[in-house]
Amino acid sequence: MINVVKIGGNVIDNPSALASFLDDFAKMSEPKILIHGGGKEATRLSQRLNIPTKMIEGRRVTDADTLDVVTMVYAGLINKRIVAMLQARGVNAIGLCGADANIIPATKRPDNPVDYGFVGDIDAQHINHEAIKTLLHAGMTPVFCAITRCDNPKQGMLLNSNADSVACAVASAAARIGETQMHYCFEMPGVMLDVNDPNSVIPEITPAKFLELKNAGVVHSGMLPKITNAINAVRSGVKNVIIKSSGALNASTGTVIKP
Amino acid sequence: MINVVKIGGNVIDNPSALASFLDDFAKMSEPKILIHGGGKEATRLSQRLNIPTKMIEGRRVTDADTLDVVTMVYAGLINKRIVAMLQARGVNAIGLCGADANIIPATKRPDNPVDYGFVGDIDAQHINHEAIKTLLHAGMTPVFCAITRCDNPKQGMLLNSNADSVACAVASAAARIGETQMHYCFEMPGVMLDVNDPNSVIPEITPAKFLELKNAGVVHSGMLPKITNAINAVRSGVKNVIIKSSGALNASTGTVIKP
Repeated sequence: MINVVKIGGNVIDNPSALASFLDDFAKMSEPKILIHGGGKEATRLSQRLNIPTKMIEGRRVTDADTLDVVTMVYAGLINKRIVAMLQARGVNAIGLCGADANIIPATKRPDNPVDYGFVGDIDAQHINHEAIKTLLHAGMTPVFCAITRCDNPKQGMLLNSNADSVACAVASAAARIGETQMHYCFEMPGVMLDVNDPNSVIPEITPAKFLELKNAGVVHSGMLPKITNAINAVRSGVKNVIIKSSGALNASTGTVIKP
Repeated sequence: MINVVKIGGNVIDNPSALASFLDDFAKMSEPKILIHGGGKEATRLSQRLNIPTKMIEGRRVTDADTLDVVTMVYAGLINKRIVAMLQARGVNAIGLCGADANIIPATKRPDNPVDYGFVGDIDAQHINHEAIKTLLHAGMTPVFCAITRCDNPKQGMLLNSNADSVACAVASAAARIGETQMHYCFEMPGVMLDVNDPNSVIPEITPAKFLELKNAGVVHSGMLPKITNAINAVRSGVKNVIIKSSGALNASTGTVIKP
């Protein structure tokens, strides 16, 4: 079983949560792949450099200066920090962005109706699963950030992509190598019927159940793209996706998304 | 023949020189490996962040803030920019630091007599040539920056290393995979008898000739460690090292260092 794990900013921004998460990740059986988000470090660095941060509908508008900042923070600082921490825990991590070995091709998002700048939508059909297979077979654990490259072959342009989309596309590609399970970690114990009640985690969601929950207004805002991504992943061959707390990586808790 | 190429700050700092160098590198026969230095971008970023830059005998003193800066600039910005530019030129580049797949282990330099901070000396005997072989056999072109990791297994500490030393250690490791030639590129056409006369390039230097040149004072200051590194590389199995201009990668010019 290939384990694909996604962690977000809540873990990245908290050194002790990150150390504890990586302890758990190190215990997880191989082969495994980690995809990490960005956290607030890019915003902090932008502030220190007087580069204005502009968000539209929760997405970062990425001008040339901001692209440099996210490339430095995501592909440099955070990615290599995680690699070093994993190597210290006995995991043979290799830190990559989507441009490396052309593993995760992306397309620059059209600047109409909204110009997000250097933002790339993942070309999920063309993820280079053979390169991932080579690394896994060599006993390596790929650690991806969400910096990608425009797959127009003449352009050497880096792009800023969404880490959730990268994670789901990588999981779908891994499913072409072998049976794959995805662990979609965030700050909550799972998808909850009542966001204030940690005991209200919904144990299982199918596409039919998702429609039902969406229509009833139980699932909304930030959870919508997460579950849609997860459903796309299981539809493209991932055995199941578990939405769970990053503090409970190896526990059998959370919400299982099934096809 | 495995081609190992080192470029320094003079190329990194000049966008048109970098583009032209990468055009040449793309034409070079595979398998090949690129090692890049840092250039002035780290100093510029430090200045913008009000982090003082302290150099002792030409080496950067690396405190915790400076380590973050060089990790961001070398392993993030410069490394991924080069990878994207190479991918656009049809080279299947994969950008790495020494911590990735534990390829280039280092040891934190003792803080006595001079405390350089988070600076790592390469553990050349323990370069993971099997990992390099895996990548080369998969048709990938590794691109290394000089960020490494302390090989004390319990420490997840990144370190700042010297790019020339990384290049020579990687070339020596490559020589255990197959016949290896190293191209040591810098701003001059080669090692010159008279630094003001571009026609005075010394075509060949052996260890005996090196001693002679050193004693005569022809070779001094910055060239000394370069040639010493090159001689160590040929002594550990690299077929030859060519010290040449980064503008003449594929030309038969420069100074050949032979065992």
